[in-house]
Amino acid sequence: MRLAEELFGIYRAKTGAGVRRSLARLADRLPTGAGEWAVHEVPTGTPILDWEAPAEWNLRDAWIADPTDPAAGRLVDFRRCNLHVLSGSAPIDRRVPWSELKEHLHTAPDRPADVPFRTCEPGATWGFCVSQEQYDALAARGEREYEVRIDATVAPGALTLAEWFLPPDAPGPATGEPAEVLISTHTCHPALAHDGVSGMAVAAELAGALAARPGRRFGYRLLFAPATVGAIAWLAANRDCSDRVFAGLTLACCGDDGPFTLRRSRRGDAQIDRAAAHVLKHRDEPYELRDFVPFGYDQRQFCSPGFDLPVAGLTRTPNGEYSQYHTSADDLSRLSAAGLGGTVEVCAAICDVLEGNRTYVNLKPYGEPRLGPLGLYAAFGTEPDSAAAQRAVQWALNLGDGRHALLDVAERSGLPFPAVARAAAVLRSHDLLTESPTADGRPRPALPAISCPQ
Amino acid sequence: MRLAEELFGIYRAKTGAGVRRSLARLADRLPTGAGEWAVHEVPTGTPILDWEAPAEWNLRDAWIADPTDPAAGRLVDFRRCNLHVLSGSAPIDRRVPWSELKEHLHTAPDRPADVPFRTCEPGATWGFCVSQEQYDALAARGEREYEVRIDATVAPGALTLAEWFLPPDAPGPATGEPAEVLISTHTCHPALAHDGVSGMAVAAELAGALAARPGRRFGYRLLFAPATVGAIAWLAANRDCSDRVFAGLTLACCGDDGPFTLRRSRRGDAQIDRAAAHVLKHRDEPYELRDFVPFGYDQRQFCSPGFDLPVAGLTRTPNGEYSQYHTSADDLSRLSAAGLGGTVEVCAAICDVLEGNRTYVNLKPYGEPRLGPLGLYAAFGTEPDSAAAQRAVQWALNLGDGRHALLDVAERSGLPFPAVARAAAVLRSHDLLTESPTADGRPRPALPAISCPQ
Amino acid sequence: MRLAEELFGIYRAKTGAGVRRSLARLADRLPTGAGEWAVHEVPTGTPILDWEAPAEWNLRDAWIADPTDPAAGRLVDFRRCNLHVLSGSAPIDRRVPWSELKEHLHTAPDRPADVPFRTCEPGATWGFCVSQEQYDALAARGEREYEVRIDATVAPGALTLAEWFLPPDAPGPATGEPAEVLISTHTCHPALAHDGVSGMAVAAELAGALAARPGRRFGYRLLFAPATVGAIAWLAANRDCSDRVFAGLTLACCGDDGPFTLRRSRRGDAQIDRAAAHVLKHRDEPYELRDFVPFGYDQRQFCSPGFDLPVAGLTRTPNGEYSQYHTSADDLSRLSAAGLGGTVEVCAAICDVLEGNRTYVNLKPYGEPRLGPLGLYAAFGTEPDSAAAQRAVQWALNLGDGRHALLDVAERSGLPFPAVARAAAVLRSHDLLTESPTADGRPRPALPAISCPQ
Repeated sequence: MRLAEELFGIYRAKTGAGVRRSLARLADRLPTGAGEWAVHEVPTGTPILDWEAPAEWNLRDAWIADPTDPAAGRLVDFRRCNLHVLSGSAPIDRRVPWSELKEHLHTAPDRPADVPFRTCEPGATWGFCVSQEQYDALAARGEREYEVRIDATVAPGALTLAEWFLPPDAPGPATGEPAEVLISTHTCHPALAHDGVSGMAVAAELAGALAARPGRRFGYRLLFAPATVGAIAWLAANRDCSDRVFAGLTLACCGDDGPFTLRRSRRGDAQIDRAAAHVLKHRDEPYELRDFVPFGYDQRQFCSPGFDLPVAGLTRTPNGEYSQYHTSADDLSRLSAAGLGGTVEVCAAICDVLEGNRTYVNLKPYGEPRLGPLGLYAAFGTEPDSAAAQRAVQWALNLGDGRHALLDVAERSGLPFPAVARAAAVLRSHDLLTESPTADGRPRPALPAISCPQ
Repeated sequence: MRLAEELFGIYRAKTGAGVRRSLARLADRLPTGAGEWAVHEVPTGTPILDWEAPAEWNLRDAWIADPTDPAAGRLVDFRRCNLHVLSGSAPIDRRVPWSELKEHLHTAPDRPADVPFRTCEPGATWGFCVSQEQYDALAARGEREYEVRIDATVAPGALTLAEWFLPPDAPGPATGEPAEVLISTHTCHPALAHDGVSGMAVAAELAGALAARPGRRFGYRLLFAPATVGAIAWLAANRDCSDRVFAGLTLACCGDDGPFTLRRSRRGDAQIDRAAAHVLKHRDEPYELRDFVPFGYDQRQFCSPGFDLPVAGLTRTPNGEYSQYHTSADDLSRLSAAGLGGTVEVCAAICDVLEGNRTYVNLKPYGEPRLGPLGLYAAFGTEPDSAAAQRAVQWALNLGDGRHALLDVAERSGLPFPAVARAAAVLRSHDLLTESPTADGRPRPALPAISCPQ
Repeated sequence: MRLAEELFGIYRAKTGAGVRRSLARLADRLPTGAGEWAVHEVPTGTPILDWEAPAEWNLRDAWIADPTDPAAGRLVDFRRCNLHVLSGSAPIDRRVPWSELKEHLHTAPDRPADVPFRTCEPGATWGFCVSQEQYDALAARGEREYEVRIDATVAPGALTLAEWFLPPDAPGPATGEPAEVLISTHTCHPALAHDGVSGMAVAAELAGALAARPGRRFGYRLLFAPATVGAIAWLAANRDCSDRVFAGLTLACCGDDGPFTLRRSRRGDAQIDRAAAHVLKHRDEPYELRDFVPFGYDQRQFCSPGFDLPVAGLTRTPNGEYSQYHTSADDLSRLSAAGLGGTVEVCAAICDVLEGNRTYVNLKPYGEPRLGPLGLYAAFGTEPDSAAAQRAVQWALNLGDGRHALLDVAERSGLPFPAVARAAAVLRSHDLLTESPTADGRPRPALPAISCPQ
């Protein structure tokens, strides 16, 4: 929550100083001594897939004042609300008649007290965003000239993005198999809380949670980049990502108390889709699963048909589905520590499923092994948790045929993944399960030689 | 509606002069200068699959009169209702006592005022169909002799059927692939409107609609044939149809205002099944999808296991599911211009889906192509139709992987097929999509060479 | 019902004299002259898969008395209720203070008037099962010494199980294909009715029904064995069962009037799963289908991953889902002749589906064969049963493509299997269907040479 508050105070556009300052703040919060942090500056004009890196845009100050009424001060003032400037606006510094000015004002008529968030291509036009109430007050003053100032620069510079990579510390998938988990969040929205800083704050916190879990088979890559061009620049520089990315999540709108919404990957049944759905199902809260659509956030870039990465999208209340969306009312009051923390928990739990989803072979697959002497069977009549543990043991043994990974076991049994994973660990420690050399085509264990009663 | 009225006035049985007169009337209404019209006469006794062409049956007049009561005139008179004669009845011309006559009268006790429609094998017996009220009035006259006349002939002749074939005028599927769409309707029911002339009228009107659409990849074959033996005769003469027919529809009971019912083909997931279901789903009207059953109309002949053609069945209120079915109450009052016209629209829309269902490859499949400069992205906040068009563009690009045809795109996106097809056409014109050389196994486009920011 | 009553009177544990006496009683009821009956004695200590055959346990008498109150007689008396002794209890014959005795008493507090059924490993401890009321009455007597006697032996002996095998009397599946149907029921619960004798009584009655049906393609093996160790001993001695067992059912809790519950096999879509579901669907009674779980009865042994037999589980009210479960209230009053008889009927009907589920090829697959002359088409307007028979004929012909077995036809048509099987038999007798040489890849019959009308 504190990190979210700090990031909320930094003015960020798609490019420029605010992005750099935010990334530096994030870097401070990443776990020390674990993972590699890299900031990439892509020079303006660099071709990135079908696009090119845009001109860098920086804003220092902006206002509208009435030169005939100096006592009124700044009528619209960037220092009071950093959404007041059309993001990417061309600079301006001249007297502008109301008849012209009003064509450059953007409002959100549905929410008359709030300032909308609008953007344009860098330098394409100039403009201010104001509340409908501000607009009406200006209009009431009648035709007159205003002093209009946007102290911005549109100039060659760079597109800035950053990655934090936590390498695996345990043997991973076979050589040549994808072995990386990609978590991506956008950095470009200024004073928006739920649709702005929540993703950055959650990702930074998740970094700590991941670093604290030893035995990682996968590498974890956290990507902080401005929407669209940032993702495209990363893809342009990581054209082998289809071979590397095993699973991915885009994080956004993840800081309120709304129910989770999972947007499945384009593939629809990738392991990330199933793992995330499983985690959400076993939380005692409402949630929603949706199929992939090629709009909304950077999932559409990662899931473009040439890459088709298994990247799902996780939000709480989704973009566009709350009335404060893309207005100054999407402020820190929308966030909650429980909301942010719950998202970190869910992401970590999803990673736990990905990590733990191995395939085992039952080494005593003929009939039920005698578990009593091993202490694996509690006496009947014990407490509910123990009953679930017993069921997990029986499911893990029964589906231990080299064709069911533990997530299959969890899905088929209806048990939560951690219970199944614990059961598998206990069974391994008793030499009842062994990891399958390959998920398919296991050699069938030979039937133990036994004497026959007849 | 006018065509339906004219056809309603012609007395038709399975064979004979009425069929020929009806086909001639249909031929007049087919588009001039487009397509080939052929009438086939299959001589009586010709083996047709497991059957043979029946004797030709013609009827001139028929009545029942009381010779002792000439003032009463014809008590039952074919000129008043052409359903009065059992279709296929043997001729008769003699005095018949009531005790014998009543065994040859057919009624529909559930609808006492209406005359039922009944048939027999040509010449197998003789009989009249009368309303229950007529029957009761005759019965009330007590035992007496009647003058009974059916002026019919059962004689060697021919089974008459006709086809109209509109050839493709654009490159079609690969050589050896099925390239014909078969639309079949029955010609054999006399004065029945919904279960009689509606199919013929709709098919004739559809011919005009198809001829007016240039760029047809498929040939269209409209088949007008008596039920069962007509379809069997056509199949006997078109034993290669499994290699030729890409899709088909049987049309019947398609002239009232009832909701559409689609009876899927035996295959269940043929392209005709999916195209028809898609068109019905996107009309703003109730409709019903049903699985194939091997009874009812000629779908069962086309879908017999040796042929297994992908032929679905389209009706509005289905046969047997309205109380006037197969009685004199299934008259012109059941038809509506809107009902007939809506069926023509649906059939044409289904053909549009079949025609347009091509598979494309996105030529810029890595990330999202920059659509703004192409004018393909309207500014945000435009009207709803434009939003759907934008979504269609994004879906067509995202699923442009050579494995999704446009109907797949429409089904997955939930968008109507025409919107998806328009989007694909625009994208082709901007060289963003190209038709897939094959639906599967496309060569993956090479990643464009780009400079890398790191 | 009479057999159930007789078996209910015999005291049975997992091993020992009661099992042998019960098996002898069963043998008397099996059809004479048909099938082979074999009783297997597996010596104590024989390794059976991961287990070993347990010591044999026999019980003669048991009681608790107060030596200071001889007038009160036996306060707890095995002769009054044979559930009073913990099954497997070690022998005891000494004075025991209440403070010790109460630690060896088991009750069912939820059902204070009933004696629970509890077991232990042979000789592991000693104990009595008493009603909560008995316990409270003893507790009210205060601290004192009791005369405690359990006249039992735990000694090397044997584990006793039995099989009845009815060989096929008609050509069966191809050599090397599984050709055996396994019906298994547990023998080990003493005076329990629904969860005890019902399975044995139904299986014995089913034997008669099967023997009375000639033309069996499959062999039928009825297995009577104590739970867990009995099934494990059988599997140990039949390690080739995966190659032999085509279908199987475990029978238990099948004597009350509760709705049927089918627990599918681990495979979930084995022919036994589909056949049983089909039979239950077409009975005019509620029923429930459940997916496999690896607990409850011996299904989990047969469905252990090394064997993975296609064995489903059939019950009426399932184990654990009625309040009298595993108490003295699960007595003969829970059984009904209709309940037991209905289970026999269902099992026999399932076997009929397995037997009749052959695959046919339509010998006139092009168009509809002319059925009228064969008398296969009744005139329209006949009674409902005949209409179903006609539909069955049309379905059997339409799906007679060598790829649909009769159960597929029944499932797709919605008709009951017997109607479909009768239709197929009639069509075979008219040379319209022939049995498919193989279920797949049939040679397509050549199109009959016919003259072409055009």
